[in-house]
Amino acid sequence: MPEPDSGTRPETGAETGTGAGTGAGAGSRPETTAGAGAGAGAAAEPPGPFRVRPIATRRGPDPKQDRAARTRLLVLTAAAELFTARGFRHTSVQEVADRVGMTKGAVYFHYPTKEALAVAVVEHHYARWPLLLAGVTAEGHGPLETAERLLAGAALAFRDDVVVQAGTRLQVERPQIDAELPTPYVDWTELLAGLLSHAETLGELRAGVRPRTAARSLVAAFFGTQHISDVLRERADIVERWSETAELLFRAIRAD
Amino acid sequence: MPEPDSGTRPETGAETGTGAGTGAGAGSRPETTAGAGAGAGAAAEPPGPFRVRPIATRRGPDPKQDRAARTRLLVLTAAAELFTARGFRHTSVQEVADRVGMTKGAVYFHYPTKEALAVAVVEHHYARWPLLLAGVTAEGHGPLETAERLLAGAALAFRDDVVVQAGTRLQVERPQIDAELPTPYVDWTELLAGLLSHAETLGELRAGVRPRTAARSLVAAFFGTQHISDVLRERADIVERWSETAELLFRAIRAD
Repeated sequence: MPEPDSGTRPETGAETGTGAGTGAGAGSRPETTAGAGAGAGAAAEPPGPFRVRPIATRRGPDPKQDRAARTRLLVLTAAAELFTARGFRHTSVQEVADRVGMTKGAVYFHYPTKEALAVAVVEHHYARWPLLLAGVTAEGHGPLETAERLLAGAALAFRDDVVVQAGTRLQVERPQIDAELPTPYVDWTELLAGLLSHAETLGELRAGVRPRTAARSLVAAFFGTQHISDVLRERADIVERWSETAELLFRAIRAD
Repeated sequence: MPEPDSGTRPETGAETGTGAGTGAGAGSRPETTAGAGAGAGAAAEPPGPFRVRPIATRRGPDPKQDRAARTRLLVLTAAAELFTARGFRHTSVQEVADRVGMTKGAVYFHYPTKEALAVAVVEHHYARWPLLLAGVTAEGHGPLETAERLLAGAALAFRDDVVVQAGTRLQVERPQIDAELPTPYVDWTELLAGLLSHAETLGELRAGVRPRTAARSLVAAFFGTQHISDVLRERADIVERWSETAELLFRAIRAD
């Protein structure tokens, strides 16, 4: 299983902006400072789960854009570390700037408000999952096994990837953040429901198990597991805890 | 199944203070204004789950204490409504006072800080569960059925009981609250682990299911279900959602 991206892969350079059909925008102006490549204005509401698109890749070499993109990613990662450790309210843009050795003004050039930083972190969180899905799909398992491996990979990401951790903390803190964040949970539910529907057609599901219902249960149990693991153990045991819960749920879902 | 107490039962009048072995106290002075009856100083660290004791009942009639206790409960319920709707940060003691038609000073007489109000609400949240447990136990089912009915009753309480709702929101906001709240999740896990261990001795569990592991999974799935139902539907569908997830988990836990 692929180790989730920890935020430093060179090809994930520029955001596609904050308005790609996710409802973002209330508290965060659109960002146009970094070259976002070809995909920026394209997707109004793409079909399928994870409406926030994977981060666009650069088109051909452009050292200036390249440097801007790297800087943006550095700022984003520093913000994610602070959001994860302290939460939105107790993180300041000055601290983000200090962490990357920039002036506050330079940070604002890339992200005009703290809210815009939070939105970008949450969007990067969601952009992780299509990468994970692509990796697991490439392994060529059946749909039920793919669902199991996806969730196991997500547990690893929640343990190891600060952008994933920050995105989740910010989602939980959404009542305190004056910006529209993507609606949580629904994309994961849709993705898993699709896999389970496919599994149903292959006879992999126990009689009476409804794909969407089971998908909702998986998402709820996963969220609860990672949250409690965070509160009690700072997620040190999330992989083991999820493995135990997944074993029970998939036993009930899988045909004998 | 008993409908959980919605905060207005006359016999639940006075808190037992904030220091009953729960680690509370850092940000909240002990409260001594209301007569707490006989149980107040007793329990250092009582055995079993729910170390916060059920709210002590009055001993004999005392109109003055009675009125103070009623006032405290009014203030607490008003605070719970505001905490549920707006969260800790966006609730002020002045608003709590306005809601019950008191001065801010009068509220401070009962709860010296906003943090003390939050601690009291969380403790009342936990004090609900022994009442629920007593009601379900009285129905005389086996331990596995008792566990199922307990969680179904908890889902109702999360839907209908503003003190339960407020307590959970405050627990999620605990990084933002400058007071020590009781450790969440562990008492529910302990309670369910005890019931499942009993079920194991009666041969009610599927071979290989470990009581404590399954208890952790139930608590995680329940927490995730209520949280997602809150975010997406303000808990309007929590009872149905929990019923679906419980069906899957108990199918995996129960012996065929």
